[in-house]
Amino acid sequence: MSIPLLQVALDNTSLEDAIASIEQYGHLIDIVEVGTILHVAEGLHATKTLRAMYPDKILLDDIKGADAGKTLAELCFGAGADIMTAICAADINTMIAMKKVGEKMTPVRDVQIELYGDWTYEQAASWLAAGIDQLVYHRSRDAELAGKTWDTPDFEKIGKLCEMGFKVTITGGLNKEDLHLFKDYPIHCVIGGRSIRNAANPAAEAQAFQTEIRRIWGAK
Amino acid sequence: MSIPLLQVALDNTSLEDAIASIEQYGHLIDIVEVGTILHVAEGLHATKTLRAMYPDKILLDDIKGADAGKTLAELCFGAGADIMTAICAADINTMIAMKKVGEKMTPVRDVQIELYGDWTYEQAASWLAAGIDQLVYHRSRDAELAGKTWDTPDFEKIGKLCEMGFKVTITGGLNKEDLHLFKDYPIHCVIGGRSIRNAANPAAEAQAFQTEIRRIWGAK
Repeated sequence: MSIPLLQVALDNTSLEDAIASIEQYGHLIDIVEVGTILHVAEGLHATKTLRAMYPDKILLDDIKGADAGKTLAELCFGAGADIMTAICAADINTMIAMKKVGEKMTPVRDVQIELYGDWTYEQAASWLAAGIDQLVYHRSRDAELAGKTWDTPDFEKIGKLCEMGFKVTITGGLNKEDLHLFKDYPIHCVIGGRSIRNAANPAAEAQAFQTEIRRIWGAK
Repeated sequence: MSIPLLQVALDNTSLEDAIASIEQYGHLIDIVEVGTILHVAEGLHATKTLRAMYPDKILLDDIKGADAGKTLAELCFGAGADIMTAICAADINTMIAMKKVGEKMTPVRDVQIELYGDWTYEQAASWLAAGIDQLVYHRSRDAELAGKTWDTPDFEKIGKLCEMGFKVTITGGLNKEDLHLFKDYPIHCVIGGRSIRNAANPAAEAQAFQTEIRRIWGAK
């Protein structure tokens, strides 16, 4: 299996905080994410600033777009994002509209679907048919706060989505101690958020994630 | 039936454009909406600016929150929004977290659910049970572009949601000529977007919406 990428979600409530955080470990990670919270707080100013800070990193804008795909894609890709997210509840035409904007750009930009709530494998097949092959399997932060842990149905769904041909990103309060739970799956990307941002030493924690990812997936 | 409110969605791609637009008809409408597109572009700066411009209007922030309800609610309500939106795909705990933040504020702020894609009446009942009684029935802009019109299943769903006790807002490329289609339902609010913003005379169009709303719902 290939080695999963490491992404950090900047879910800070201000750009100032996000910058102070990412400066500590940005060089150690693969994907810089403008988290939904940061984007809600600061808009495209956050996207543009992080693009300027990290011209060579993959920049993901987690806006969870639900409609008006063309306009949102023009905004997010135009501000420098390589990848933007759509919510799974969006109409397929919204996702396709985003994808089309990205395909016309150089380099090509891409769309990733955020799985929340109810979705079906039939929908997932329609995303693949439209050329959208990246998705995020999510344990909701609020479901997590309400006590939901990673369990068998999660792993079954992740396995099936990988088999279908999706590049699957996993997220939702992940600690490095959780990563081994996913060892049997060809995970495309792991998102660390609070566990890295709020660590006593965020750089050491980011490095520890990378080491653990290589320990688990590197030997295969 | 009571008279539906008139909301305009500022789906401009810059705050400058949004201000130039709303200044023409803001005094004629009931709810000023920071549209998703405007919020993605400008972040809370848009919310704060429109709150300052219209201290006495209802201000709705259409962020379509999907997770991290407490933090997003603190941001949006803290910036002056009276109402914020959650996407129907969000976990119920996300919606409840938003609602709780709003209930602690003076005046109380509220949460509205945006219906996109698949949802069930069972979910809808769970929202009501959690005290969330506002929702937006949406014809997706991209579905609209793909040719979808308002049809019988739409009206059946709208009727059922009204019967369940929801305050139903309708939107999705609505023209004033479409409003009569909804005459049999106790619609809570009508969102005009492009039809008002892009009219040759936006103030006259907003007034024409209000006149048509009163013609249809006022006589009953």
